[in-house]
Amino acid sequence: MNLIEQTLATLRYILDSRAIVTGGAINPRHHTDWSHYGPTCPNVLLLPRTTEEVSKMLRICNTHKQPVVPQGGMTGLAGGSVPRAGDIALSLEHMAGIEEIDAAAATMTVLAGTRLETIQQAAAEAGFLFPLDLEARGSCQIGGNIATNAGGNSVIRYGMTRDQVLGLEVVLADGRVLNLMNKMIKNNTGYDLKQCFIGSEGTLGVITRAVLKLQPLPGHVTTAMCALPDYANAVQLLRALQKRIGTPQAYEVMWPAFYQIGVEWSGHAAPLPSDKPLYVLFESTGSGEALEALLADARGTGDVTDAVVAASPLQARQLWKVREATREFSARFSPLSFDLSLPMGEIDAFIQDCQQQLDSRFPGHHTLYFGHIDDSSLHVTIDLNSLPEPSPVDALNDLIYTAVGGRKGSVSAEHGIGALKRNYLHHSVTPEAMDVMRQLKQTFDPNGILNPGKVIA
Amino acid sequence: MNLIEQTLATLRYILDSRAIVTGGAINPRHHTDWSHYGPTCPNVLLLPRTTEEVSKMLRICNTHKQPVVPQGGMTGLAGGSVPRAGDIALSLEHMAGIEEIDAAAATMTVLAGTRLETIQQAAAEAGFLFPLDLEARGSCQIGGNIATNAGGNSVIRYGMTRDQVLGLEVVLADGRVLNLMNKMIKNNTGYDLKQCFIGSEGTLGVITRAVLKLQPLPGHVTTAMCALPDYANAVQLLRALQKRIGTPQAYEVMWPAFYQIGVEWSGHAAPLPSDKPLYVLFESTGSGEALEALLADARGTGDVTDAVVAASPLQARQLWKVREATREFSARFSPLSFDLSLPMGEIDAFIQDCQQQLDSRFPGHHTLYFGHIDDSSLHVTIDLNSLPEPSPVDALNDLIYTAVGGRKGSVSAEHGIGALKRNYLHHSVTPEAMDVMRQLKQTFDPNGILNPGKVIA
Ligand SMILES: Cc1cc2nc3c(=O)[nH]c(=O)nc-3n(C[C@H](O)[C@H](O)[C@H](O)COP(=O)(O)OP(=O)(O)OC[C@H]3O[C@@H](n4cnc5c(N)ncnc54)[C@H](O)[C@@H]3O)c2cc1C
Ligand SMILES: Cc1cc2nc3c(=O)[nH]c(=O)nc-3n(C[C@H](O)[C@H](O)[C@H](O)COP(=O)(O)OP(=O)(O)OC[C@H]3O[C@@H](n4cnc5c(N)ncnc54)[C@H](O)[C@@H]3O)c2cc1C
Repeated sequence: MNLIEQTLATLRYILDSRAIVTGGAINPRHHTDWSHYGPTCPNVLLLPRTTEEVSKMLRICNTHKQPVVPQGGMTGLAGGSVPRAGDIALSLEHMAGIEEIDAAAATMTVLAGTRLETIQQAAAEAGFLFPLDLEARGSCQIGGNIATNAGGNSVIRYGMTRDQVLGLEVVLADGRVLNLMNKMIKNNTGYDLKQCFIGSEGTLGVITRAVLKLQPLPGHVTTAMCALPDYANAVQLLRALQKRIGTPQAYEVMWPAFYQIGVEWSGHAAPLPSDKPLYVLFESTGSGEALEALLADARGTGDVTDAVVAASPLQARQLWKVREATREFSARFSPLSFDLSLPMGEIDAFIQDCQQQLDSRFPGHHTLYFGHIDDSSLHVTIDLNSLPEPSPVDALNDLIYTAVGGRKGSVSAEHGIGALKRNYLHHSVTPEAMDVMRQLKQTFDPNGILNPGKVIA
Repeated sequence: MNLIEQTLATLRYILDSRAIVTGGAINPRHHTDWSHYGPTCPNVLLLPRTTEEVSKMLRICNTHKQPVVPQGGMTGLAGGSVPRAGDIALSLEHMAGIEEIDAAAATMTVLAGTRLETIQQAAAEAGFLFPLDLEARGSCQIGGNIATNAGGNSVIRYGMTRDQVLGLEVVLADGRVLNLMNKMIKNNTGYDLKQCFIGSEGTLGVITRAVLKLQPLPGHVTTAMCALPDYANAVQLLRALQKRIGTPQAYEVMWPAFYQIGVEWSGHAAPLPSDKPLYVLFESTGSGEALEALLADARGTGDVTDAVVAASPLQARQLWKVREATREFSARFSPLSFDLSLPMGEIDAFIQDCQQQLDSRFPGHHTLYFGHIDDSSLHVTIDLNSLPEPSPVDALNDLIYTAVGGRKGSVSAEHGIGALKRNYLHHSVTPEAMDVMRQLKQTFDPNGILNPGKVIA
């Protein structure tokens, strides 16, 4: 018997047969994530229903030194949950459900396989907001969100997934169950171990349960769009909003080429003239009057040249339609997209850098920029259709990631490293830090069975 | 030559003599922290001026397996920076200064020895708020704040020190310098190593620099005090504030015995009748009218029975005077103080538990309770003068910490474990988690030279 047969025999001996799927019976959705990175059928698919089952499964795999790839909703964009040949996949999809909403503590306790949307809805029904939000909400699982430290739409106000997690239950590679469940904001009892697992992309442990922090429901939200003379004014306007009204719910900065495409695809009239240097779409929780007063002042100081405040939910939807051009990128473009972050003050200079280098090396390129800026993130999308075949993907990756590294930016703002970005990690992480990551991996997973080949070499 | 002599000889050979102090020349402030835990003169005091010097010092000590205790402002309350006989102390006090304020990114880069107050002032001068605030601000260092993950007065709105730190530079036990400096909120490039060092109380590495997140200056603040019929109403009032006005800057819940002492010591007339079941003092950033409207509604629903809104800064100061009775505890009491946290919904039940047990086992005890509740913290102070000699400190510790553990609370909300609370850690941390903490310690500090005897055994 080879490795996988031995492991499988032990698994079958110990576990309920419903928890083990093999060969053609494995649904192709377990072959790759939304990055479409090298689809591979895992040798075995494990479907635990309890933490105890996860523990048994890992203990067996660890004994046999059998690689295991944890799988959530398979919506990742870095190939993190994609099996390699010979891997066993361990999917959390049968470990779903909300165990408790503690209204007094404003916490929710969930199983790792619970879908994000289910959590958002349950929070709303209990009169709270669970602020983490991404377009994959209907498919991604909270375990996957935690394992990737997902960002999304509400980071500027509420922070990353890390900031929404109070407690975790994690099964270690050797099957030990680590109970780090906790409902307290203040809790300094030794090392905060849960932090190690948040954002570790399934390489240090399997997340099985979590305690999430709930927020008060926000009041009325006003949506507005402005044109601005310069990037510095976008920073100024944000600071004014934060100071006078409170951190906005959303703050989406669009550079002109992005805005123009967004208007074109929206099918509506342009809300603002299309020849301005910069645009921002934002949502503020202040009163309409407070916002009007602030915008009047911003026009006075020259921070804003044109502005429109949505007078109805319909008009707000139309403004958002411009920003949501991103949803059509895959259908209308051949997009090469970058999920970057940079120190907020460097974002515009970085874009100028990139444009200059792209103009000189890839004439005719069509590149779009938008970002939430206050959370330091910038999305860059190059339409490969604008460039001659064969697509110079490697050269473009090198150009962008080198420019990011040069400004002490990050090659992954939110999607993680997974399999896809491993070779670019060195632009943002020092060799010493990489060594320490390897030491951490060695500590938690000495046999290297958890998601090998992901994050670090 | 014994261990310390060998180490000292090498240190003297490699380092500038100004960086090395021995024997009687060591200022007694390096003997203990504000807990007054067993004062001990370190064998040697090291005073590095640069990260490179810290690196050399640790490399030498590590080679000789010589224990080192990192020291910040020595304001800790858990004995974390107190030397054991034979220890070398490494004080960051000569590594102070602000390296940069990046107004566009809203970040500040500082050396670890910089005092908190210096940072607060520099932020204010640049038009920002650095929200971390504790009464030790004039003496504690940001490195100590980070090493203890300090909490303080503004946690309910801004979070713990962990939430204020974007980047770190850390020297590992073997002298390797780990550059984790970063200005981005979104940055998912591998494991977030800085999290390991925040709150590790000098046992995993020496923090030498940090990038801090700055906040917009808050607008006008209104101070108010209310009397409430019950704990559940304090939760309700907080939720109403969060929803209608925004999370308050401060929310200090005082149980009656605390309130009564506070009024008595304040020297002013009682702002509210003294016979109410519960009191809360809060600071809100909303307009006076919004707050008055909310309080009128709260009186309508019965959540609040009496309320006073400060009409002037002077009156606000007088209200705070009641809460600041804590400042006089040491002078007027023989206080045994507990820094606890509990799930927010359990706080009142916990207090009833404690009172009952204290009443039956320690009749005549005088015990005061107050807490910020929304950050889950509760301060309990027992006046040992109210109990017969010899003071039953161990029995009281056992009673309180066992009750905390029973409700899945934390034996240290913010002060850390240090030397003082090591024996109570098990009430809040499982044996498996304790094992993993030891593994982490072993990974970062295999020779066990960094602050041995602190946090974990
Ligand atoms: C349309 C769309 C929009 C998106 N928008 C955003 C966005 O705005 N912000 C953002 O950050 N991301 C975004 N993403 C990426 C993706 O949705 C997130 O990374 C999400 O958090 C992944 O969750 P998942 O359950 O699908 O995880 P998977 O894709 O299944 O797995 C992701 C990684 O986590 C590991 N993992 C999964 N579950 C566990 C577990 N229980 N224990 C341990 N490891 C586990 C896997 O091994 C893998 O490495 C988007 C994706 C799509 C398709
Ligand atoms: C009046 C008063 C009020 C206080 N109020 C609060 C409060 O509200 N909230 C709160 O959380 N705490 C409070 N404290 C406790 C204390 O001020 C904090 O724990 C503070 O963060 C300690 O900082 P320090 O520089 O004095 O550290 P020290 O006491 O010198 O050291 C504390 C710990 O950190 C380690 N350490 C220090 N510097 C470094 C470094 N550069 N690298 C690695 N390890 C290091 C030490 O080894 C030790 O374990 C209060 C203390 C006093 C005296």
